[in-house]
Amino acid sequence: MAGSLGRICKGLKRLGSLIHPSASVSVRATFARTMLQGLPSSFFLKPRDFSLPNSSWGSEMMRLYKHYNSQCEVEMEGGETREGPWQRLPSYNRFLKYAPGGVYLSKIIQSKARLFTRNCRDPGATFEYALYFNSEEQKCVGIFQAGHLLEGPPGHVHGGAIATMIDTVTGAHATILSGPVVTANLNINYRRPIPLGSTVLIESSLDKKEGKKIFITCKVTSSDGSKVHTDTTALFVSIGVSHLLLGS
Amino acid sequence: MAGSLGRICKGLKRLGSLIHPSASVSVRATFARTMLQGLPSSFFLKPRDFSLPNSSWGSEMMRLYKHYNSQCEVEMEGGETREGPWQRLPSYNRFLKYAPGGVYLSKIIQSKARLFTRNCRDPGATFEYALYFNSEEQKCVGIFQAGHLLEGPPGHVHGGAIATMIDTVTGAHATILSGPVVTANLNINYRRPIPLGSTVLIESSLDKKEGKKIFITCKVTSSDGSKVHTDTTALFVSIGVSHLLLGS
Repeated sequence: MAGSLGRICKGLKRLGSLIHPSASVSVRATFARTMLQGLPSSFFLKPRDFSLPNSSWGSEMMRLYKHYNSQCEVEMEGGETREGPWQRLPSYNRFLKYAPGGVYLSKIIQSKARLFTRNCRDPGATFEYALYFNSEEQKCVGIFQAGHLLEGPPGHVHGGAIATMIDTVTGAHATILSGPVVTANLNINYRRPIPLGSTVLIESSLDKKEGKKIFITCKVTSSDGSKVHTDTTALFVSIGVSHLLLGS
Repeated sequence: MAGSLGRICKGLKRLGSLIHPSASVSVRATFARTMLQGLPSSFFLKPRDFSLPNSSWGSEMMRLYKHYNSQCEVEMEGGETREGPWQRLPSYNRFLKYAPGGVYLSKIIQSKARLFTRNCRDPGATFEYALYFNSEEQKCVGIFQAGHLLEGPPGHVHGGAIATMIDTVTGAHATILSGPVVTANLNINYRRPIPLGSTVLIESSLDKKEGKKIFITCKVTSSDGSKVHTDTTALFVSIGVSHLLLGS
């Protein structure tokens, strides 16, 4: 066991940055893309990107998607395009199968394991979301459509499902800023319930960095920003790869 | 719309206590049982209790289940039994279908909606848990086996899935103590990751009550109590039924 873990760590250390341990989509994306870029494309099956629109996305989700996507590329004079201020972050339901080292990892981690927020095959039933990062403003935004299987209060989203999306967005943000991290604290104020089926905005802002600590604030609002559903402070701590895998 | 909501509220107010808006299992149970007790048994289909053992439960989960169940009934001299200090709380994946008033509620809330923690048909894949309440000690305990679809960090449970179980146990606890409540704050310190497939204990204790506020502390530990995975403070606020349904 220790030998296997040693090989895992050794292999993964060579890979540089790794995903955020709270299952951040952006980090999985970064990690998977890093892997894919360094190897022949035929070496891997192309993973499905879950943050692209599907038939379940409603008009408000599509409006927000188009809004942020339009700022990922900016048209210049002459018709050429350049990168805009925002970047869409793809999202997969597992990263290990696409990573060198997976041959060892699969001995430890069940092959059936899937990212919590991407474990449902029924489009629209649970978490539908896409994340965007703005490097100039050091902000991260999530657009989130809540499915009917996320119920807590009658007709409304479970507090744990809201916490899950907050952890996902802020964790992705922290990882982009500082590499591999763990969630150390989530302090969530629930102000207003979120109706099932509705689309909300999750906005994550860097508060400060102190050594290995990354302090982030996050607001979940209605899609037009007029109603605050939750406000949160989150603390993440940078970690090494061995810490992540050994879970110590 | 307003008229429908008015009828819903009027109908539900007559019912007395209602479920906790963070989808607490115990409250759903209490609510459903209250409904069932007041009506002919043939009036409803018997709902499935998800907190009973199934084939996915491992040895540690079964050990804890038997441990707490053995304290729900105590054998007296002469072989008779009486209620013990603990009470197991059944758990359903929806309560509205068993409640009078559902005819109105179903117009608003999608018929497919399911409790977030009980939305998966595959035994063992997500949340396997049972809750117990001790009225003498005013404590609530959850035994929780984490499935392979709850992944966050590689091989470990997502921070949001942990938050979900904390909200479930503490929310159930607050509702038993004070009737219908909403989660106002969850402040979670993540100390140690939880491996997928493992069984943990979630212990909820009443800190204090101040007017409508219920302050609760909660620890998630390894099943033998030796390792602390998270510690949490939670704040719940008592609400009226109309607040719960209108989501204001």
